[in-house]
Amino acid sequence: MEHADEMIPILKSSLPFWEHLKETEKKTLSQWSQLIRYEKGGIIRCQNCECTGVLIIKSGSVRTYMLSEEGKEITLYRLEQGDVCVLSASCVLSAITFEVQMEAVTESEIIQISAGAYSEIVDRNIYAEAFTYKQATERFSDVMWTMQQILFMSFDQRLAIFLLDESGKTGSDDIHMTHEQLAKYTGSAREVVSRMLKYFSSEGLVKLSRGGVTILDKKGLKQLIS
Amino acid sequence: MEHADEMIPILKSSLPFWEHLKETEKKTLSQWSQLIRYEKGGIIRCQNCECTGVLIIKSGSVRTYMLSEEGKEITLYRLEQGDVCVLSASCVLSAITFEVQMEAVTESEIIQISAGAYSEIVDRNIYAEAFTYKQATERFSDVMWTMQQILFMSFDQRLAIFLLDESGKTGSDDIHMTHEQLAKYTGSAREVVSRMLKYFSSEGLVKLSRGGVTILDKKGLKQLIS
Repeated sequence: MEHADEMIPILKSSLPFWEHLKETEKKTLSQWSQLIRYEKGGIIRCQNCECTGVLIIKSGSVRTYMLSEEGKEITLYRLEQGDVCVLSASCVLSAITFEVQMEAVTESEIIQISAGAYSEIVDRNIYAEAFTYKQATERFSDVMWTMQQILFMSFDQRLAIFLLDESGKTGSDDIHMTHEQLAKYTGSAREVVSRMLKYFSSEGLVKLSRGGVTILDKKGLKQLIS
Repeated sequence: MEHADEMIPILKSSLPFWEHLKETEKKTLSQWSQLIRYEKGGIIRCQNCECTGVLIIKSGSVRTYMLSEEGKEITLYRLEQGDVCVLSASCVLSAITFEVQMEAVTESEIIQISAGAYSEIVDRNIYAEAFTYKQATERFSDVMWTMQQILFMSFDQRLAIFLLDESGKTGSDDIHMTHEQLAKYTGSAREVVSRMLKYFSSEGLVKLSRGGVTILDKKGLKQLIS
């Protein structure tokens, strides 16, 4: 855990309502924040765990997902450096009645603000309330996009979109992910991913290797989507 | 269209930020509100239509759904008397980047507040902003529940839940809906609904008739879910 004073610059830059807080509230919020380091694959928030609180991603990448009782997973959205996640504090926000799970995709440093301290601020400060629910609404938009893809698109389209998005993000045609990981991200089963990749490969759209997938024909993948 | 003064009591009771508005803002909002009557089945908001604005359900019942390019529908949630819907004003709310469709399930009276007038208030008044995004977050919770049902439950469970919910709402064991309508509400295809109802009927759980479905064995339906 870091010293509370070291939290202040990050809280100030990530929480736009900071300037509307009283000095005592700023102090409380920084005292109830801590920096936690997660290994790759570390579970940040699990179902029926203690309330996690609000998260600020200082470095790394976090995957947010839903988990069914049978253990089936659907990836909802990803959080990157600088993102704030309020859904992880659902336990104290009355308008949020569902729970999401989170895991670190890469080694990550995350500021965790105690749910209790945060909710006291939200209850008292209208700027904090507005910010919090606006953040939740932005995640809502992400989830609707995911939902549309899962429910309405055929799987070849979903996989093509994922590969192109990933390549756009990393600036490389090489996608270093296992079929298992691709299945998680696209809300599908490993066998379905493997089958589709084999088909993409036979069409000359991608090349498969031990470490992942290389895109050979971007134009061809884009044609699948349009 | 009603006289602006007649809007004030409804706006006042439905919008908790009303007391934080200036007199001129109250006037603007009531002048830019109108009462619209929809027939059963009337389309309140369609894709690529003009921006609808914020809705207050004065009477009746409204279904909100997503529509795919191929015309497939998924019901997201329903709005009843007194409910406020801000997602229909997505065109002016920066954090909402998706569109929903809406239709009147029964004959309905709806107050429609102009998107432009509402967004001006939201931009200037932090209480209006907080209320708006909190409303959106509550819908987010509804949608997550729907999504969990569609993605994780088997269809017999979804249909059983829908029939029991509907019976609970109306206080009757008779559900007056066609298989087509049940398919819309459960995010499924008509044939799938018909097949499942036939199975439910053969198990003595329901009785099928021309006008809909009658629940015969509530306990049996509940056992499917648990």
